[in-house]
Amino acid sequence: MANGIIMHEVGLRDGLQMEKQVVSTAQKIAWAEPLIDSGIDILQLGSFVHPEKIPQMADTDDLFRHFKSIQKTRPVVVSGLVLNEKGLERGLACGVEMFCMGVSASETHSRKNTGMSVSEATDRILRMARAALEAKKKIQVSVQSAFGCGYEGHVPQEEVMKIVRRYLEEGLKNISLADTAGRATPDQVERMYGTIRTMDPDVELSCHFHNTYGLALANCYAAMKTGVKSFESSVAGLGGCPFTKIAGGNVCTEDLVHMWQRMGLRRDISLEKLIDLACDMSKFFGRELPGTIYRTGPIHEPGPIPLKDW
Amino acid sequence: MANGIIMHEVGLRDGLQMEKQVVSTAQKIAWAEPLIDSGIDILQLGSFVHPEKIPQMADTDDLFRHFKSIQKTRPVVVSGLVLNEKGLERGLACGVEMFCMGVSASETHSRKNTGMSVSEATDRILRMARAALEAKKKIQVSVQSAFGCGYEGHVPQEEVMKIVRRYLEEGLKNISLADTAGRATPDQVERMYGTIRTMDPDVELSCHFHNTYGLALANCYAAMKTGVKSFESSVAGLGGCPFTKIAGGNVCTEDLVHMWQRMGLRRDISLEKLIDLACDMSKFFGRELPGTIYRTGPIHEPGPIPLKDW
Repeated sequence: MANGIIMHEVGLRDGLQMEKQVVSTAQKIAWAEPLIDSGIDILQLGSFVHPEKIPQMADTDDLFRHFKSIQKTRPVVVSGLVLNEKGLERGLACGVEMFCMGVSASETHSRKNTGMSVSEATDRILRMARAALEAKKKIQVSVQSAFGCGYEGHVPQEEVMKIVRRYLEEGLKNISLADTAGRATPDQVERMYGTIRTMDPDVELSCHFHNTYGLALANCYAAMKTGVKSFESSVAGLGGCPFTKIAGGNVCTEDLVHMWQRMGLRRDISLEKLIDLACDMSKFFGRELPGTIYRTGPIHEPGPIPLKDW
Repeated sequence: MANGIIMHEVGLRDGLQMEKQVVSTAQKIAWAEPLIDSGIDILQLGSFVHPEKIPQMADTDDLFRHFKSIQKTRPVVVSGLVLNEKGLERGLACGVEMFCMGVSASETHSRKNTGMSVSEATDRILRMARAALEAKKKIQVSVQSAFGCGYEGHVPQEEVMKIVRRYLEEGLKNISLADTAGRATPDQVERMYGTIRTMDPDVELSCHFHNTYGLALANCYAAMKTGVKSFESSVAGLGGCPFTKIAGGNVCTEDLVHMWQRMGLRRDISLEKLIDLACDMSKFFGRELPGTIYRTGPIHEPGPIPLKDW
């Protein structure tokens, strides 16, 4: 986690969950291995959701069991998304190291996604977080639709902060804001994270941007400048949320790493491995994927460029 | 030019100059009209280059004569790119209101583009600028390959500042940095423009980004935050420089306007007119163009979002 930036790969979860073509467990493992080798820090293997709802995630437990049973080539933390108590139970049983869980700040999105109001969903997430903490697991709590909602449009910042406040009161310091609908703008990113930092200067900030309107990299840059440390991204820019009306892919891992490396950050990550994987995935799905760098190639400097410490 | 942001549309010049399919003068006029109506501030109609070098630009003088002969529907400034004395002469004769001219900070790029060293090319641009000023014309001077070069890679900041210093000594205050090869990163954008502002706090800063590696919007945001006022962009994200090895399109006008408007800026511009035009251009060229918003549609808020004054 050199230079203070943490890369959290979510392509095997958020990236694959909207793909109709079901990917075999063996194929997911074959993709997870170069991701681990590339030098990323956290790898999300899947979500614990009912297999009928998202068949692509039916083998999540198997994937965790696989990576628990072997010696990983690098000390990557494996994370899983849990939506309810049943998911938490499954995750605790199969070897999840970091639990990600969240609440939508939009009433409509919350009800469509969970059948609960925002307030009820927050109560449940807090109960689940306590249980995961008791089991000595890492936890990341998030606010979904934090920058706007595909159904409701503008989501008042105060609705987001209400949830953040409850997380902080509970001692949950690793907080992610998720731009589920891809609506964030960089100025809004600065305002939101800036506000959270005034609420608790020790908060560990994470972000999750979608590139629906082309702003994901701009938002990541603004987030980094505002002190966000952990960045969720999908290799090849795969992804999107089936529960929002217009769903763009996640910010693309190799495009983001390329930006960091041009800025002198995270030069320990193998961009080559990520690009090779994005090319493989593009062949597998038989179409061009949203990422840029796997198509253009990265910038190779004829001469050295100056390193910069942030 | 509400909110201090100036939109300078260069799609009919930088956008078209690398398109093989020659666009008729009547078609260019048919595209220029909705651009003028959309609310942009400056419209670049073409460049004054030898017709054999770029046949697409052969009718530049005719276009300027057309818009000189009619009453424009809005007070848009028409700009033209001039590369040499002959071009300046043509531009003065046909009604250019704002002359854009520049020097590459990369020796290799300068020699390939002009056959001259950077120093010789700067001398020539300064002579041309004096002549245009004497003719009471608006002038924008630029540094090309300011953020790196497709041939040389890293371009030391000092090479850029040498040219900027000569512009400022000459009293040329409207200075554009052009990311010809699409290599800029937002941190670099902040450093470069920040340095120029320390050299002359009254400088009027302009920028010209290409989206080769997906960073054009991030760079525009960083530029805006550092005090840049004028943004060159191409409708539909058309464009690229035929003299660099990998050429991505210009930052896309409607994507950039969409970002500004989401931030509460430049709500006077008709995003709808820009999107309609991008759709027309996509049909004309028979392919998907690089812009995002003309394909996804803009965000329509169900409710009002708060306006913000910068």
